[in-house]
Amino acid sequence: MSRSDLASTTCSVARAIERVGDPWTLMILREMFLGSRRFDDLQRKTGASPHTLSQRLKQLCADEILVTRPYTTSPPRHEYFLTEKGLDLWPVIVMLRSWGEKWLEDGKSPAIGLTHKSCGGAMTPTLVCSTCGEPVGARDSRVHLSERMRLERNEHRGSSH
Amino acid sequence: MSRSDLASTTCSVARAIERVGDPWTLMILREMFLGSRRFDDLQRKTGASPHTLSQRLKQLCADEILVTRPYTTSPPRHEYFLTEKGLDLWPVIVMLRSWGEKWLEDGKSPAIGLTHKSCGGAMTPTLVCSTCGEPVGARDSRVHLSERMRLERNEHRGSSH
Repeated sequence: MSRSDLASTTCSVARAIERVGDPWTLMILREMFLGSRRFDDLQRKTGASPHTLSQRLKQLCADEILVTRPYTTSPPRHEYFLTEKGLDLWPVIVMLRSWGEKWLEDGKSPAIGLTHKSCGGAMTPTLVCSTCGEPVGARDSRVHLSERMRLERNEHRGSSH
Repeated sequence: MSRSDLASTTCSVARAIERVGDPWTLMILREMFLGSRRFDDLQRKTGASPHTLSQRLKQLCADEILVTRPYTTSPPRHEYFLTEKGLDLWPVIVMLRSWGEKWLEDGKSPAIGLTHKSCGGAMTPTLVCSTCGEPVGARDSRVHLSERMRLERNEHRGSSH
């Protein structure tokens, strides 16, 4: 299956994975949320090679997750910023962090702490049901697939054997 | 940067990315949350090659995200199940879904609907602050890096140029 196969799927999870479900892309997003803006800084803080970083940044801009803005004209240099679409990926990064803190902890204090600006409290972002407001996890939800999704999953690319 | 470099980082986001930040791994997790249990089914519904699927499943079991249980002994066959550690990845998949629904929508009805078992309501899982209960996004939080994390980010692998 190629990137384009995932992009054309009915499933919004698969489409999202096609855009951002790559280790380097996710590391770049982490860095953007930590405030990195420039190529050199992103390279040092993610450990990506210039080629890999350049390729991922180009794709993130093409997907309108990042946007560039010049910060000097001679020589021409630009910084990267998250768009609204990019900022909306914060919950994905934050939920990866929560899982890492819980299941991959190294016995030391958390590397990244969050404070809620408006209430001033230490924040552990928590997932709740939009209807009743109670915290929710995997066991609390029932899944319904659309007819289109059901057909697509069973007719998937290639044979099963 | 290799998988092992990310695994040894201070940052829980990076450690989580090292385990599950791969398109095939994320597609397998999606399928597990939709109820797939068997190799053939996972292969058909993710579109992965047998080699890729086998390699990812082996790693997910080694990482204790999945566990196998036999369902027949002659011939010996097993099914895959999410462990508690695996079930705790639900928020990551669900937040990818929310982002996909919002930003990559194809003008059709959602492929996957969720109902909250206990309240019976249609559920849009929502991220809230653990202190005040208000919905939170990227702009609502202030980030604090531990001293260890700050040092690590600036001393990252390789040179910056």
